[in-house]
Order: sequence, then C-alpha cells, then structure tokens
Amino acid sequence: MLEGYRGRALHVLASINADVGDVIELNSDKVHLRGILMPSYSKDDSIVVLKLDNGYNVGFSVDKVKVSLVERSSKKEPEKTESNKPGKVKIISTGGTIVSKVEYETGAVRPALTTEEIIKFVPEIQDITSISANVLFSILSENMNPKFWVKIAESVKRAFEEGSEGVVVAHGTDTMSYTASALAFSLNVLPGPVVLVGSQRSSDRPSSDSGINLVSSVLLANQAPFGEVVVNMHGESSDTYTLAHRGVKVRKMHTSRRDAFQSVNDLPLAKVIWKEKLVKLLRTDYRRKSDHIEMNAKFDERVFLLKFYPGLKPDIVELLLSAGYKGIIVEGTGLGHTSSEFQEAFRKATKEGVFVGMTSQCLFGRVNMNVYQTGRILQQAGVIPLGDMLPEVALVKLMWVLGQTDDLEQITKIMLKNVVGEYNPRHLLDHFPRWKHE
Amino acid sequence: MLEGYRGRALHVLASINADVGDVIELNSDKVHLRGILMPSYSKDDSIVVLKLDNGYNVGFSVDKVKVSLVERSSKKEPEKTESNKPGKVKIISTGGTIVSKVEYETGAVRPALTTEEIIKFVPEIQDITSISANVLFSILSENMNPKFWVKIAESVKRAFEEGSEGVVVAHGTDTMSYTASALAFSLNVLPGPVVLVGSQRSSDRPSSDSGINLVSSVLLANQAPFGEVVVNMHGESSDTYTLAHRGVKVRKMHTSRRDAFQSVNDLPLAKVIWKEKLVKLLRTDYRRKSDHIEMNAKFDERVFLLKFYPGLKPDIVELLLSAGYKGIIVEGTGLGHTSSEFQEAFRKATKEGVFVGMTSQCLFGRVNMNVYQTGRILQQAGVIPLGDMLPEVALVKLMWVLGQTDDLEQITKIMLKNVVGEYNPRHLLDHFPRWKHE
Repeated sequence: MLEGYRGRALHVLASINADVGDVIELNSDKVHLRGILMPSYSKDDSIVVLKLDNGYNVGFSVDKVKVSLVERSSKKEPEKTESNKPGKVKIISTGGTIVSKVEYETGAVRPALTTEEIIKFVPEIQDITSISANVLFSILSENMNPKFWVKIAESVKRAFEEGSEGVVVAHGTDTMSYTASALAFSLNVLPGPVVLVGSQRSSDRPSSDSGINLVSSVLLANQAPFGEVVVNMHGESSDTYTLAHRGVKVRKMHTSRRDAFQSVNDLPLAKVIWKEKLVKLLRTDYRRKSDHIEMNAKFDERVFLLKFYPGLKPDIVELLLSAGYKGIIVEGTGLGHTSSEFQEAFRKATKEGVFVGMTSQCLFGRVNMNVYQTGRILQQAGVIPLGDMLPEVALVKLMWVLGQTDDLEQITKIMLKNVVGEYNPRHLLDHFPRWKHE
Repeated sequence: MLEGYRGRALHVLASINADVGDVIELNSDKVHLRGILMPSYSKDDSIVVLKLDNGYNVGFSVDKVKVSLVERSSKKEPEKTESNKPGKVKIISTGGTIVSKVEYETGAVRPALTTEEIIKFVPEIQDITSISANVLFSILSENMNPKFWVKIAESVKRAFEEGSEGVVVAHGTDTMSYTASALAFSLNVLPGPVVLVGSQRSSDRPSSDSGINLVSSVLLANQAPFGEVVVNMHGESSDTYTLAHRGVKVRKMHTSRRDAFQSVNDLPLAKVIWKEKLVKLLRTDYRRKSDHIEMNAKFDERVFLLKFYPGLKPDIVELLLSAGYKGIIVEGTGLGHTSSEFQEAFRKATKEGVFVGMTSQCLFGRVNMNVYQTGRILQQAGVIPLGDMLPEVALVKLMWVLGQTDDLEQITKIMLKNVVGEYNPRHLLDHFPRWKHE
C-alpha cells in the first residue's frame, strides 16, 4: 500500500511496482540516494520520502530524480502485525509528536498516527523482538493530567500481566517527566523496564528523532536488566545514542533540542547505541526486576506548585487554602527560602493539616534549611525540606501521597522516604553540567 | 585594633604587637604558614585567622603554633577610609552572605558586617582604585522586594552622580538575579558598569568565594567598558576566575556551588582573572557607557508567576484576577504550553486588561507558540509568547512595565521590545551546557 501517495509520485511508484518498506534509489545528475520508501504526508504530490541509512528522512520530487526499485522489503508487512497478541515488548501510545504528523496546510502538528503506523515508520523494531502495540489515547502531553496517569499505569500493568517483558510508552515531551514520576511512584515494584519516549521533531522532518528514539526504547525495554521507569531520549544533538534517565531525576531542559532531556542531580542509568543494538549500563545501582508488579495509582490533584519570587505576598497561601488545596510544594530560592513574612501563612497551613514542602528553583543541588535563619524559621512553621528532589517530582509525589493518606505525619514520613530514587544522597561534581564560557 | 580577638589569641597577638592587616607567620612541627592577619569571629578564643596568598582563610589555635610578626601592614588603615568621599568605585552593601558572619553558637549565618569591614577583609581592593562604600541596608536576599530594588537603583544613580565610575552592589545570592533584572530595566542608560556580587560561602569559611568575587567585581567596575548591569561570580568551582553575566540572562543554577550563577541562552560578557588583575571581554556586543544616567524605577508588584503542571486547574486564574493581579507570567511546558482548558481563563484575563505572557519551564531555548495547536489557541486567547526571556526576568520586566502604564497594548509593546538584551535573537549550540553522562 503506497500510503499517503497521490498524483505524480503515486504514478511513478506504482509504475515501478514499489511499495512502502522497499529499498529505492533516487538518481539524477546531482543526487544518488538509496533508502527505504516511507509513507508520504507531503502536500506536494510529487514528493517521494526515503529513510536513509543514517536515520534521516529525505523527500525528493519525482520530477527531479529517476526512481528505481532496488530490493523488495524483507520485513513482515506491518498490516499483518498481530498487535493484540502480547509481544515481548509492548508499545503503548498516548500521543505527542512521536506519533504526530504535520498539517501542511497550517504548518502545525497534530497527534494522528496509530501505533501500527509507527511500526511501519520504524520497521527495524520488529527485528529486535516481537512487538505488540495499542493506542491508549491520542493527546498532546500538555493536556495530560493525573486521571490519564492512572490509565497509563493500568495499561502498563496489564501489559506485564499479559506476558510482555518490557513496556514502551510513547508520550509527548512537554509533560513526559511528570508522567515518568507518576508511573515511577505508582508502579514502584516492576518486573521489567518501562520506557517513556517522545520526539522533539515530528517524524516527517528530516531532523526527526522519533525513529532512533523509538528503536532505542524497544532495545531498552527488551534488554535492560532493571525494573524502573525511565525516560529515553537523544543523548546529544546528533544521532549517535540515546540515554535512559531515571524517571524521577529527569527534566526537559530545552524547548527544542533533541537532547533536551537531562538527568538533574543524577547520572543516566544507561546509554543505547542503536546502530550496534547495544544497551550499555552506566550504573550498577538500578532497581532489579521484581518477580511481580505492584500498582498504587491514586492521585489527589489538590496540590499547588508555588514558585517564590521577590514581591510575592503570603496572601497567596490563604487563597490556596480557601480554594481547597491540600498540599503546597514551594519552589524556593537558593537553599530553600521564601521571604520570612511567609512564616505565619505556612504555620497556619500546616496547622490545618496542609503539607508544605520546600524545593529549590535552582534545580541543581539540594535544599538545606539549617544554614540560614530564614530556613530555620520556615522549618519552625512546619515547612519540610525535600533535599534534592526536583520541584516537579515533589509535586507529583505529593499528589500520589495524598492519594493514600490525609494524615500530615504520615504524609511527611512518605515524602521524606526515598521511594524510587527521587532523592540522591550523594552528589558528584559531574552532576552539574559544564557551561561553555568563551 | 585586633577586631574580634579575645582571650588567649588576643594575648598572644598583643604580645607581639600584631594588628589586623599585618603579615604573620604560624610555625609548628607540622605547620608553616604566612598570611595576612584577619579579624576573628571564632567562638574559640584561641584561634587566629590568616588569609593566605591563595585567597583562603585558615584558623589555627595559638596553643598549637608559634605566632610571629613578619611585616607591618602597608595598607591604609581601613578605619581611615573616608568612605563618604566618592571613590572611583562605589560599593553599596545590601546584605547577604558576602557581608555575613557565622553565629558559631547555632552554626547559622546572619548578615552583619559593615562595608568598611569588607574592605578590611579584602584590603587588596584598595590597590585597584579609590573605593568608597556605604551600607544601604542589611537584609538576606530572600527578603528583598521591589521596594528595595527602587532604593538600590536610587543609590546606584547617586553614586554615579557623585562621581563614581563604576558601582559594586553586594547582595545575597538567593534573589540576586531578580535584582539584577530590576536594576537593568530601571537603569537602562548607564555611564558605567553596575556589578552585583555575592558569595555562596561565608567569608570565614576556608572555601569562601567572597574575597575573590569582591576583588574581581571592583576590577570589573573599574575597568569594564560597558554600561550594563552584570552579575559577577565564580566561573568554575576553583578560584581561578569569575564571570560577568548579563543581568537579564543569568540564573542561580545551583543551591551551593560557587559557580552557581550561569548565563542561560547567552554567553557571559567578561571573564575576570583576579590574580592578573585582568578583565577579559568575551563579547563585543555589550552596551557602551553612556554620558549620562537615566532612571525609571517604578514597579507594580501585582504580577504572578504561574508555573503550569499537569492537574493545574484554570480556576487559579480566576483566583488571581479576584485578588487584583494585573499581570501573569506563565511558566509553561515545552515551547510554551498549558493544557488547552486554560484558553477560556486566559481569554477572560486578557479581556479584562490583564497581561498574560508565556515563558518556558525548560529555561533553555525559546517559546514558539506557532508549532502546535495548543500554542495557537493560547495566542488566540491573548497570551503573548516571550521568546527566550527567562521566566524570572519576564516577571521583573512585567512589574517594571506595569509601573509605567496600564494600557494592555502599550504593555505588550514594551514586553516584546528588547530593552537591555533580555531577548537573545540568536542561540548558539554552545549556549546549552554539556552534561557529563558517564
């Protein structure tokens, strides 16, 4: 099936009896290219799209090149993928750029493709192991919320129970690290890897990272020895490797770079060199696979992430209490501070049973509320310092803890417990990235 | 005056007729050290404190070493500093660790020293140029707010008008970058450098960065050719150099490291190699010194910094409107998103004349609200994308703009204008730091 092709390109491809997945050559005076014929989503009906060996997709007009068929696809036809039978690796698609296509009319991107279509985009994954897939939902990740987290957790649990040994969750990148935390806390005993993967560039752009990210994620889900939730994305801006970051220590640190996801206050767990089909473990302190799965996926959304800044008035705490919030994660300055005039408001909140936890807007390093006077008076008001937990992770964890209990003492105890590596007790100099200064 | 010395240490020092600022030698079987005698803030009255050539302070008990006087201080006595006469460089002290001492009783740090005492701590600065100083106030920077920003701006203006050619502002590090932005916007025509400086480790700790940071800042204020507000702090974790970051492009990126301050989406303006008294310009696109100063220091504090996260309900916008906020800076996900259910709330806000601007919690990169559907519907609701401006800078800028006008069209126009380099139209690969992965 020459999916997406129309007009002149369809005519040329049909005339040489080519199909998506076949190896094709494009030749002209200037161009000599060989690659796999991809589906087309081009508005221009003269374009054929080829996936090159280096992973890039290119499009050329049939008016400018001679198209010839080199080799029939040896791959199993994706249409025949029995996606309802459990594969060793299960791909759960939730939406996002990795499963999106561009509306050429507006230039905007919409989630659209089914997971079967992803398999067709990256047929290589079927050489790794048996794959099954389902489209759980198709939303942009900025619209993700705790109710969806529960559905993803349930779907992951089902996949393992049905016999899959590793799970890949295709997800938009905007809130992928929040979902990673949510899955890490709610599935904190796992029989295999759960790999969240996204794409910073949509799959029809030549610089798309979706193919390599997905192949690497299937490799990870198939080979990695851990029972952990990780985020697997480009490790550098070129296409050499991806990195598997612990789900509770990763952050999207750039709006557009392909290596936007980075571990903060931590090192990645593994590196995947997709060309060599190699999963290289970078650490030994990962959580081993368990012989069973445990799920505890309840979240209370009444948690607020309050970023402190000069001029912020303590009244905001009153507002949040009156609006029914049950927990506040403060993103304080430096070692974990707000202005000292917040002391009374926080005291009132904690007296009412509202948990107030302190993280730092510096992101790197850890809060320490014993160094300065301000830290000590905030602690006297009941504010709990949360070490090196990222603000976003503390937020998700508190939603999860409030899903289990509303007893402040109990909440505090679980918030301070290192459940899945969200605290890193030991920081190395290398955890801080190096800036280029000249 | 043997400041701070009591008991045995005072007795020994007085017996050899030594004074603070003199060169002293400490000798024992194991120790041979030479350095400048510093004031003492030790609870232990046997300790003498020496500043070594490498910039470190060390403390030794007089019970364990023999103390001898090597050389009288050639420095002008700090007590004789005529700090009310304008120096070529003016130091304005506002508080913070750089002017703090440790309460040995509790281990906590309090702002305490006067600026004259700083000069005594770092007598080298008097070799650079003539220095004058005043203590404007003495607060920890987490208690800084827009009212204090105005006072600092006025004090800087006065210093230039009285004949100083460069100004150093000693400031706590917690909110130093907010103050840097506030000064950059409110003093956007400057006849010389305004250098904010702080310290991540208090001056009586051996690893203190306060001495080198202050010396480098005086060098900058004296030598730099620009009329800009910069933050000057350690450039790496050892004591080799400091970096002058543009005030509107810098962020405290670590809770405790000495090189916590880093330029985001930008490169530093200058590097100061204090040992060589060298100010090395790293860029040529700095703002030249003007022949006059302009001040426009009014801030409206009714601005909220709203960090979006999954599960956040649009009701918060209603709450903010009802509480009288006039502007909202959203720290959205990825390229500048919130969940699409915020569309209505933002539309209502902007219809009521409340400015809503979008930045990214990724921090690195720039927002682009034309790529995804969500971005476009938020723009239709009146949300203004703010490029690569940091969320904290956008917040301060909006407070400043609201101090000038409450006309939404006018506010939008100034928010989008590149006033002092808060937008960087050109990002280089090197603007993204390099993470160590294995």
